[in-house]
Amino acid sequence: MTVTNIDQRYEIVKDLIDTEDWNALKDVIGKLPTIEIVEILEKLEEQDLLLVFELFSKKEKAQIFGEFSRDLQYQIFNKLDKRAFSKIFEDMRSDERADFYQELTLEEQTSLLPYLNKQVRSNVVELSAYDSDSAGGIMTTDFATVRVWMTVREAVDKIKIDSPGKKMIYYVYVVDDEKVLLGFITLKDLILADLSDKIADLLHVDYVAAKVNDDRERAARMIEKYDLVALPILNDDHKLVGIVRHDDAIEVIVAEQTEDMEKMMGITSSNDEGDDEGYMDISVFRHFKKRVVWLVSLAIVGMISGLILHHFEAALDQMVILALYMPMLADTGGNAGSQASTVIIRALSLGEVTVKDWWTITFKEMRISILLAVCLSSIAFIKVSLLSFDTLLPGTLTLSYVAFIISLALALQVVSSTIIGAGLPIIVRKFNGDPAVVASPAITTIVDITGLLIYFSLATAFLLQV
Amino acid sequence: MTVTNIDQRYEIVKDLIDTEDWNALKDVIGKLPTIEIVEILEKLEEQDLLLVFELFSKKEKAQIFGEFSRDLQYQIFNKLDKRAFSKIFEDMRSDERADFYQELTLEEQTSLLPYLNKQVRSNVVELSAYDSDSAGGIMTTDFATVRVWMTVREAVDKIKIDSPGKKMIYYVYVVDDEKVLLGFITLKDLILADLSDKIADLLHVDYVAAKVNDDRERAARMIEKYDLVALPILNDDHKLVGIVRHDDAIEVIVAEQTEDMEKMMGITSSNDEGDDEGYMDISVFRHFKKRVVWLVSLAIVGMISGLILHHFEAALDQMVILALYMPMLADTGGNAGSQASTVIIRALSLGEVTVKDWWTITFKEMRISILLAVCLSSIAFIKVSLLSFDTLLPGTLTLSYVAFIISLALALQVVSSTIIGAGLPIIVRKFNGDPAVVASPAITTIVDITGLLIYFSLATAFLLQV
Repeated sequence: MTVTNIDQRYEIVKDLIDTEDWNALKDVIGKLPTIEIVEILEKLEEQDLLLVFELFSKKEKAQIFGEFSRDLQYQIFNKLDKRAFSKIFEDMRSDERADFYQELTLEEQTSLLPYLNKQVRSNVVELSAYDSDSAGGIMTTDFATVRVWMTVREAVDKIKIDSPGKKMIYYVYVVDDEKVLLGFITLKDLILADLSDKIADLLHVDYVAAKVNDDRERAARMIEKYDLVALPILNDDHKLVGIVRHDDAIEVIVAEQTEDMEKMMGITSSNDEGDDEGYMDISVFRHFKKRVVWLVSLAIVGMISGLILHHFEAALDQMVILALYMPMLADTGGNAGSQASTVIIRALSLGEVTVKDWWTITFKEMRISILLAVCLSSIAFIKVSLLSFDTLLPGTLTLSYVAFIISLALALQVVSSTIIGAGLPIIVRKFNGDPAVVASPAITTIVDITGLLIYFSLATAFLLQV
Repeated sequence: MTVTNIDQRYEIVKDLIDTEDWNALKDVIGKLPTIEIVEILEKLEEQDLLLVFELFSKKEKAQIFGEFSRDLQYQIFNKLDKRAFSKIFEDMRSDERADFYQELTLEEQTSLLPYLNKQVRSNVVELSAYDSDSAGGIMTTDFATVRVWMTVREAVDKIKIDSPGKKMIYYVYVVDDEKVLLGFITLKDLILADLSDKIADLLHVDYVAAKVNDDRERAARMIEKYDLVALPILNDDHKLVGIVRHDDAIEVIVAEQTEDMEKMMGITSSNDEGDDEGYMDISVFRHFKKRVVWLVSLAIVGMISGLILHHFEAALDQMVILALYMPMLADTGGNAGSQASTVIIRALSLGEVTVKDWWTITFKEMRISILLAVCLSSIAFIKVSLLSFDTLLPGTLTLSYVAFIISLALALQVVSSTIIGAGLPIIVRKFNGDPAVVASPAITTIVDITGLLIYFSLATAFLLQV
C-alpha cells in the first residue's frame, strides 16, 4: 500500500539527505508511484532536489520530470547541461515532452534540438505544432500498431520489438500499409487467440476516432461517452497520428470544469497560460487581471440601475420606506436568477437540454418560479410588517397595504429573474456563444435593472401621490 | 467511423421498423457502439423499442439495457417476463446490475431472485449492500486474478477460462491463496514474457488501492491522480473484492462537479435520488425543493440588512443620494466576494491549497482586492459625479466630496468582501464543513450587511450633520 502520510515520508527523506545515505534514500522512495516521488521532491530545496533526482535512472528521471510543475521543470532544465537533459527529454512521454518544449523560448528550443536524436526531434517539432486546445495538442504518439495482414504471432513479435518499457498499451491499432486506421484489437484478443490466427479476423471495425484539429474537450467527451481507455486521433487522410489517453481526458474535463466555474463568476481564464496552474502559482497581478474585466464591465452596466434610481429620486424622497426594501428585492432576484442560470448552463454543457427545448424549459422555470415567489413574497410581507411598524407613511396608506405592494413587486421580480436567468444562457448558446458568461454576476446586474423597474412602476402606480 | 448524425440514423431506423425489415435494421445499428444504439432506442415508442430490442443477442441486450436511463430500464423490466429478464440481468456488468437492483422495491427484488443462478444472486446481493456513495457502491466484480505461484502459461490459461466475452481487462491482479492482493501485472507484461516465466517475477508490488468503504469520490480522485485504468478495492482483510474502472471514475468526478456547482448557487442536491438524472427528468416540485431552502434562509438572514437600513432610515431621509448608491455597493461587493470564494473553493477541492495556507491566501487576496478597489472606486467616483450632478446636497457639502466618501466606502467594501469571500470557505473547511455552501448566494447576503455598515458609518461620520 503506497498511501501513507506524505509529510512523514518527507521527514525521513530529509534526514537521509542530511546523513547523505543515498542507498537507503533510493530504497525508501525508489519504488513509490511516480506522482508520490514528485510530491516529495517538490518539497525539497533546489540543491537537495537535484541530488536526489540524480539517484534515478534515465527512464525514471523522464517520468518524474514529466510530472513536475512547469516552473520546476524550467528550473531543472536550466541547471542541467543540455546534453544530460536531452537524454532525459528523449525518454519522456511524447505529449508531456511536447508540452514542455512549447513553453521554451526559441533560443532555448534551438539550444536543445541539436542534442536530440532525429526521430525525437521531428516528433517534438510535429507535436508542438498543434494548438494546445486541440486533440493534437493533448495526444501522445506512444501507441502500438500492427498491420492487418499479420498473424497473431507476427503481431506479438512486432509489439515486443517496438513497445518501449513504460509505454501503456491497451488497444493495438490495426492499419494498412499507408498507416490508414482500419480498426483495433485489444491485448486481451491477442492473449485469447491462437498464434496462428489472422489479425484481420480479430479486427474490431466499429471504432470511434477524432480528428487532430478537433477541440480537445470534444475528444475528452468522446472518451467519456464511449468509456474508452484511449481515443485514436486521425489526420485528414484518415491516417493514425496519435492517441488521447483516458487520464489526459480526465485532466481536460477537470480543467474545463474549473474554467466553467470561473466563467460563471466572471473570472476570465488566461488562455495564454496553461490550465494546470494552481491558485498559488498564479501571481497577484494575474489574479487581478482575471477578475477585474468583469467587475469593471458590470460596474459600468450598473450605471443603468444608477440612472433608474436617479430618475425615481423624488419617489424615494417622498417615501423613504421604498429605499429600505430595494436591497431585499435585488438580492432575492439575483439569487433566484443565478440558481436558474446555473442549472441551465450545467444542463446545456452536459447535453441534458438543447436550444430546441427552450419552450419546455421556460414553461418549467415559470412554474418553479411561481412556487418560489409565493414563499418568498410571504416572507417579504412579514418582514415589512415587522421592521417598518413604526414608519410614518404619507397620506392614507396603511402599512399592510404598502407591505402587500412591496411583496407583490418581489413576487414579480422572482418570476422574471428566474426566467431571465434560465433564458439568457439558451439565447447565448443559440448564437453560438458560451452560456457560462451569463451566469451569476451578469444575471445579478441585469435583474437589478428589471427589479428596480418593477419596484418603482408598482410604487408610482399604487403608493405615490403625484 | 461511427460518428454521424443521430437524427438521420433515427429516421432510417423508423422507416425500417415501419417496413418491418428487421434484418436490414440489425445491419444498420447492430455494429454501432452500445451507447449509440441506446441513443436511438431511447427515441423510439415503447412497442417499437421492444421489437428492436428483441433483435439483439442476450449479451448485447445486457450491454444495451445497462446504458438505458433508470426509467426506461424500469419500463422494460415490467414488460418482460421475469425469466426472460433474468437472462439479460445475468449478463449485465456487475456494478450496473447492482445499481438497477437497488432501485427495485423489495417485492420486485424477491420476484427476480429465484430466476438468477446462485453465483449471480449472491454477487448482486453483496454489491447492492454497499452505500452508493462508497467505493463499494461503484465497483465492479468483473476483474481477472491469477495466483502468485503460477507461470505465465498457467496465468494465460486461467484468463482464457474465466474471462467472459466483453469483460474489459487491463490489469491482472495477483493474489495469494486467500485472495489477499499482492500486486498486479499488465496484459502487456504477459505478452512480452515467455510462457515459462514466473508471475512472481513479473509482479508489480507498488500498487495503489482503496478500501470498500472509502468515499467514492476519494476512489475516483485516486484513479485521476495515479492515471489508473482501474483501481483495486480491498476489504478490511486486505482481500480483493472489486475494481473501480476509469470510466466510472469520470462519471463520479462529473457528478460531484455538478453537485459542487449547484451547492455554490445554493441549490441543495437531493441525495435520495441518483446524480445521473438530467434537468428534464426532475419534476417541477423537486426543482422547487432543491432551490427554495437556500432562498428562504437567505431571505431570513437578509432581515439583518433590513434592520440596519431601518436603523439608518433617518440618514436616508436626510440625504436621499445615499439611497441611490446602495445597490452599486451591494452588487460590487457581492461580485468581488463571489469571485474570491469561487477561486478558493475550487482550489480547496482540487487540493491546490489547504487550511494551513490561510495566511498566504488572505494576504494574497488582500493585495488582489486593493488593486480591484482602486479601479472600481474610481469608476464609482465618476459615476456619482455624472449621475448626481443636479442633486441638491444638504449644508456645505460639495458633490465631489460626497462622491469621494461614497467611493471610499466602495473601496473598503471591495477589500472586505474579497477577504470574507476567500476566508469563509477556509473557515468552513477548517471545521470539516463543505466550503461550497459559503459560495455566491451566502457571500452576497453576508457582504450586504458589512457593506451597509461600512457605508452608513462613513456617511454618518463625514456627511450627516447630527
